[in-house]
Amino acid sequence: MTSTSFGLTAIGNALVDVLAQVDDAFIDREDSEHGMKRGSMNLIGAPRAKQLYGVMPPALEMSGGSAGNTMACYASFGGKGAYIGKVGQDQLGAVFGHDLKTMGVHYNTTPQQTGVPTGHCLILVTPDGQRTMNTFLGAAVELTPDDIDETVIAQSAVTYLEGYLFDPPQAKSAFYKAAEIAHKAGRKVSLTLSDSFCVDRHRKDFIDLVNNHVDILFANESEIMSLYEVFDWNDVPAVIEGKCNIVCLTRSEKGSVVFHDGDIYDIPAEPLTKMVDTTGAGDAYAAGFLYGYTHGHDMMMSGRLGAIAAAEVISHMGPRPQMPLSTLIPRRAA
Amino acid sequence: MTSTSFGLTAIGNALVDVLAQVDDAFIDREDSEHGMKRGSMNLIGAPRAKQLYGVMPPALEMSGGSAGNTMACYASFGGKGAYIGKVGQDQLGAVFGHDLKTMGVHYNTTPQQTGVPTGHCLILVTPDGQRTMNTFLGAAVELTPDDIDETVIAQSAVTYLEGYLFDPPQAKSAFYKAAEIAHKAGRKVSLTLSDSFCVDRHRKDFIDLVNNHVDILFANESEIMSLYEVFDWNDVPAVIEGKCNIVCLTRSEKGSVVFHDGDIYDIPAEPLTKMVDTTGAGDAYAAGFLYGYTHGHDMMMSGRLGAIAAAEVISHMGPRPQMPLSTLIPRRAA
Repeated sequence: MTSTSFGLTAIGNALVDVLAQVDDAFIDREDSEHGMKRGSMNLIGAPRAKQLYGVMPPALEMSGGSAGNTMACYASFGGKGAYIGKVGQDQLGAVFGHDLKTMGVHYNTTPQQTGVPTGHCLILVTPDGQRTMNTFLGAAVELTPDDIDETVIAQSAVTYLEGYLFDPPQAKSAFYKAAEIAHKAGRKVSLTLSDSFCVDRHRKDFIDLVNNHVDILFANESEIMSLYEVFDWNDVPAVIEGKCNIVCLTRSEKGSVVFHDGDIYDIPAEPLTKMVDTTGAGDAYAAGFLYGYTHGHDMMMSGRLGAIAAAEVISHMGPRPQMPLSTLIPRRAA
Repeated sequence: MTSTSFGLTAIGNALVDVLAQVDDAFIDREDSEHGMKRGSMNLIGAPRAKQLYGVMPPALEMSGGSAGNTMACYASFGGKGAYIGKVGQDQLGAVFGHDLKTMGVHYNTTPQQTGVPTGHCLILVTPDGQRTMNTFLGAAVELTPDDIDETVIAQSAVTYLEGYLFDPPQAKSAFYKAAEIAHKAGRKVSLTLSDSFCVDRHRKDFIDLVNNHVDILFANESEIMSLYEVFDWNDVPAVIEGKCNIVCLTRSEKGSVVFHDGDIYDIPAEPLTKMVDTTGAGDAYAAGFLYGYTHGHDMMMSGRLGAIAAAEVISHMGPRPQMPLSTLIPRRAA
């Protein structure tokens, strides 16, 4: 086992977010006309992306992508990390790279050279703070096993994979390759299920992955229930029993629950002054937990750091922190 | 005189803003190493833009440009307007166009076809909310008199010009052409001085313009004092006497003063809950005043609408309103 250069390496769909506030009628109309699932991530092609953008209100552009957001939060806590994901050779790709690298995140995946644009996610935020995402994968879909940097993965304490990677077929292979490298080097593999519809699209593969290749699993209530097809939250502890070493389940305002070695830790949500936009809440939680985990903290404190990061991110528009998360670490954990 | 299709048409440098929060040490360092003027607009070339972006923290991207911001605010009040300004054929140009058109602003300036990128402004926001701007003009510099849409200008009650247009030489010609068309059609011409260093670069031309071609002038304290080279605020009323029909002078937290037909109107600043980022405050003030002016309101109410718009814009990151300004119009003016 080589020395640990990185606490966390994340692999994900490299996306720039295009965020706009809309009313509920906008979502209802798009749902009835285009089957847009409220509160979920909808995969869209180029024509639909163009059409939807054309009717969206003025927006703000910000680097996003689930695992990219997690790395931004991890670095904001002060953690040393790396990111692997594919952008195009264009302005939004340059923005994505800039925003990771200037946080100190190691990022050198070769941009796609074929003229395919950087992927983007059209995010519609309703007055209740809920976000409905519409992803045009663009260059992100071109991530292949060749993009997996073996040296980086082998030197990373934890490799973190976003479930969304299961949508582009080659990315899925990249995903398995990374998990294998990590385990061979004696490292841990973490996964977030990403979205209940994503779980639904790839349930069989996800179950195999979770049962056999994942050490630390992140999911929210609907994702974990979709994975194991249970319909009552009370049935969840039994179905995850013995599946992977650590399971972190987020429950919005009810906080989170961490399962580890037969023990169950209940972690309250952080008090909120306001909720503006839930985009990136789960990504931030994973970052906080993994920052704690890779810095010697126990389950309770790691979960609390997750809750702290999520609370910061949902207090404003956009999925990445606006203040250094390192300043929010409770004194006894610093 | 043809019928009025637009209340306001603005001509400006079409820019996308790249906004990041930095500490005071960052500004001091850039000032000492690159002569970056704190609180002002610094014109930069492509190499400096690349270098500065490389050291800037993660940013958010949003449509900007002084006159573009004014049109966004004018439309947000419910006003009907048009915009003329040049972007490149790229992703940021598409963002700029989208953000105006989806607010209902008429915008059909042909993008530059030569591969020159859309101009952008690297904006550094310090903890006091002050912004220091660094503009790479890009395609905006290519605005020519041919881009001036005669029909639009002739049908617009007011044509509004940003002083920054005096930096690109051809844009200055476009500027004079637009003013001539407007006056021939019996319309009003408005100008904002934009920046005290911009005034310094073009003082002689600005004085000629203000004295002979402008009906409604906007400036802040340092800009008007730079224009007439006076060093005491108390000397300002005498030097602007008889220069143009309406002069609106903004004074930050001290509010604004409107001079019209020998009368002086003192308008207080709106109470603020917080000041996050002053980017676009002057642009928003001009929009509010001109919305009032083009909708039959008196000087006091027009000035107050300016103050209301400015207060909204400085309460968050970015130069454009996050809530419909129409909802903030005092009931007696609605």
